[in-house]
Amino acid sequence: MSGNSDVFAPRGSPAEVEEARLLSPKFDADGLIACVATDARTGEVLMVAHMNAEALRKTIETGEAWYFSRSRKKLWRKGETSGHSQRVVEMRVDCDQDAILVKVEQTGAACHTGRRSCFYRAVPLGRIDARPIALEFCDAEKLFDPRAVYGDPQKR
Amino acid sequence: MSGNSDVFAPRGSPAEVEEARLLSPKFDADGLIACVATDARTGEVLMVAHMNAEALRKTIETGEAWYFSRSRKKLWRKGETSGHSQRVVEMRVDCDQDAILVKVEQTGAACHTGRRSCFYRAVPLGRIDARPIALEFCDAEKLFDPRAVYGDPQKR
Repeated sequence: MSGNSDVFAPRGSPAEVEEARLLSPKFDADGLIACVATDARTGEVLMVAHMNAEALRKTIETGEAWYFSRSRKKLWRKGETSGHSQRVVEMRVDCDQDAILVKVEQTGAACHTGRRSCFYRAVPLGRIDARPIALEFCDAEKLFDPRAVYGDPQKR
Repeated sequence: MSGNSDVFAPRGSPAEVEEARLLSPKFDADGLIACVATDARTGEVLMVAHMNAEALRKTIETGEAWYFSRSRKKLWRKGETSGHSQRVVEMRVDCDQDAILVKVEQTGAACHTGRRSCFYRAVPLGRIDARPIALEFCDAEKLFDPRAVYGDPQKR
């Protein structure tokens, strides 16, 4: 399989990055770009993760979501352990090409805690009465048991 | 105005961060956390930006979206130059509390290029024929003229 260097265009001026038809992603100092995954059917934001150049290329080529795990420091196909893979229906890049959006068909649930989306807690808005701020659980139903899928967290 | 240190809880174990009712955001080495803004009515992803602790606290307190500009290295209220502000209808935090989601009422357009969303170009999926990869413009209508709002980019 060929490398990534000729797949992505070099970064040009801001005007070129914003208005040109060339994919020239901006990877950060760690070689990563943020990626938002949404449910292709409902638009719900499922998760935010990171891709390195190889994960981005593999996602484009295969139509399956690949990410780079910052904690485990490894390339990772979404669902490779859990079976909860993401088929990418559409991919977008943002104006300055430092963020990716994938609209996906999510098998099972996106969140490793068992929830459909990683965003299962709300931050109340307005005057800050409680210190620290208290969260509210919402849409937090677990669709699977993370221990059954990933094993005991102490032994992972 | 008081500081941010007592507003956010210290980071606990992964289980505490994921299942507790305390807001304990994980700021990166630069003191930033990624934030996705979606249209509260349609669910469309409008932009991805970053908040520092002060931007996050001000967004919670005021219900207006504040960010930290990495390029200009300054706190920034969305719309302070353009008038294209974001009223936050709902805020969520993700499982490991290293990403924020805000559902907003967007005045005007979110993108500094004049588009409603920053994600106005699609990355074609499948076998990579063109090197570098060619983007496709979609939903790319400009709702305002960025030169009229921000001035000549050469002189900014």
